[in-house]
Amino acid sequence: MKVLLQGKIVPEEQAVVSVFDRGFLYGDGLFETIRVINGRMFRWPQHLARLQRGAEFLQLRLPYPADQLANWGHELARANRLLDCLLRVNLSRGVGPRGYSPKGADRPTLVMTTHPVADVDPQEPPIWTLVTSSHRLPAGDPLAHFKTSNKLKQILARSEADVLGANEALLLNTNGHVVEASSSNLFWILQQKIWTPGISAGVLPGVTRGVVFEIARNLGCEIAEAEIMPHELTEAESIFLSVTSAGIVECGWLDGVELRRSPLCRKLQMAYRELLVAETRD
Amino acid sequence: MKVLLQGKIVPEEQAVVSVFDRGFLYGDGLFETIRVINGRMFRWPQHLARLQRGAEFLQLRLPYPADQLANWGHELARANRLLDCLLRVNLSRGVGPRGYSPKGADRPTLVMTTHPVADVDPQEPPIWTLVTSSHRLPAGDPLAHFKTSNKLKQILARSEADVLGANEALLLNTNGHVVEASSSNLFWILQQKIWTPGISAGVLPGVTRGVVFEIARNLGCEIAEAEIMPHELTEAESIFLSVTSAGIVECGWLDGVELRRSPLCRKLQMAYRELLVAETRD
Repeated sequence: MKVLLQGKIVPEEQAVVSVFDRGFLYGDGLFETIRVINGRMFRWPQHLARLQRGAEFLQLRLPYPADQLANWGHELARANRLLDCLLRVNLSRGVGPRGYSPKGADRPTLVMTTHPVADVDPQEPPIWTLVTSSHRLPAGDPLAHFKTSNKLKQILARSEADVLGANEALLLNTNGHVVEASSSNLFWILQQKIWTPGISAGVLPGVTRGVVFEIARNLGCEIAEAEIMPHELTEAESIFLSVTSAGIVECGWLDGVELRRSPLCRKLQMAYRELLVAETRD
Repeated sequence: MKVLLQGKIVPEEQAVVSVFDRGFLYGDGLFETIRVINGRMFRWPQHLARLQRGAEFLQLRLPYPADQLANWGHELARANRLLDCLLRVNLSRGVGPRGYSPKGADRPTLVMTTHPVADVDPQEPPIWTLVTSSHRLPAGDPLAHFKTSNKLKQILARSEADVLGANEALLLNTNGHVVEASSSNLFWILQQKIWTPGISAGVLPGVTRGVVFEIARNLGCEIAEAEIMPHELTEAESIFLSVTSAGIVECGWLDGVELRRSPLCRKLQMAYRELLVAETRD
């Protein structure tokens, strides 16, 4: 597998960064994970925009022009012969003097990697089990708006799910409201209307989350943000997740309780699939 | 400058980690910064204990025996001819498959580095300026008990201080209470008694913070934990910080307001210095 490091495609063994890189020391960076299908990056402009907003917030300079990043993404997927994969773009602040101050760290590190992805059979979509994590996200955290490299809470939550044999972990915020899952956004259906926690709960504004809003509106479904407590979730007609790697995934169980399932979720899955294929067609 | 990487002393240029290291990707790790004086590590057992507690919490295996770490620390300081320095010990979860799940990442990365440190003249201790950061730490965060590699909030806070020409940034928690500074613990003196925010506020239990408790008690001073709102701080007889690199540092200004100064702070500084020298003597 080849890796793109600072603009150069190198073998995996040469894809290394200094132990003084602030990404390694403090998680001082950002990343994006993009679905590549038919050799094309799905919703690249949205991923790029979030990366750029994050870089501005962290006062971290994107060291290459945006067009260049897109070209490199395509080049790397081709070099790895992966027309259908996940592309990870990682931007760290690079090497700087000791200590938290970012002063003097002015050469960010850009890394791109590709990862195989299991294609979802649209006729047999997976059903995931979800468990509620004991870890809480800070409510109203401004850093939640970006995909930063500070992911210990998500790691610990996901690890709790692993132990229980679940696919994903549900995270609440410090106010006890539902936020999202460790690496996906959460939706629920109630009276044929689609709901999802609002950004102010501390939600990462997922690119696939945005796609769900589009699809729902195209299908003439109402979709809105709302606060929800975890015990209210089991009353839903369906709970589903939006996931970069797998699209829309319905949940079958939450903390061992079997959930209701909705044909509307299936309609959304089909529409998502159509959009994905249409936008990445030659 | 030489670096210790996975038990081997290597030149700085060879001190690299994979771009797939979870430290680099997610800040999935821990670190300690230890004051080395006269070639000896001050309060190593306390630093090691915190590292071990953090590793247990993150379910991250310390890949080498504790004695080995201490020996390597001394060896590296000697190799770099730094009898008086800071030693940084960094432990990340190492390389694993894509995604937050730590499953399959079972070879942690251990790095040790040394950093020159400016010795504090006990006759002319520095006076620092402090500014309150706009970033908030989550109150009651269990991760605050360990020195994790998720440090974006501290970085952003410190960056705000940099912009204003201040030495350190004061951080409040999501309840609005004072917690600590970006890389030091905070104390204040009121009616000759010493106070500091309690661990439950989201305080990192600093090793130097622990030393301040010891010194205060040895001097017969009362010292206790308390909640405090930022506006109450300026009523203090002194505000001081406990810092691994610099010991006890009194603050002269908080958000542009000149602070009172106390001879008691000076007594604590002298006692800290004596302890540091006594415990690292040949």
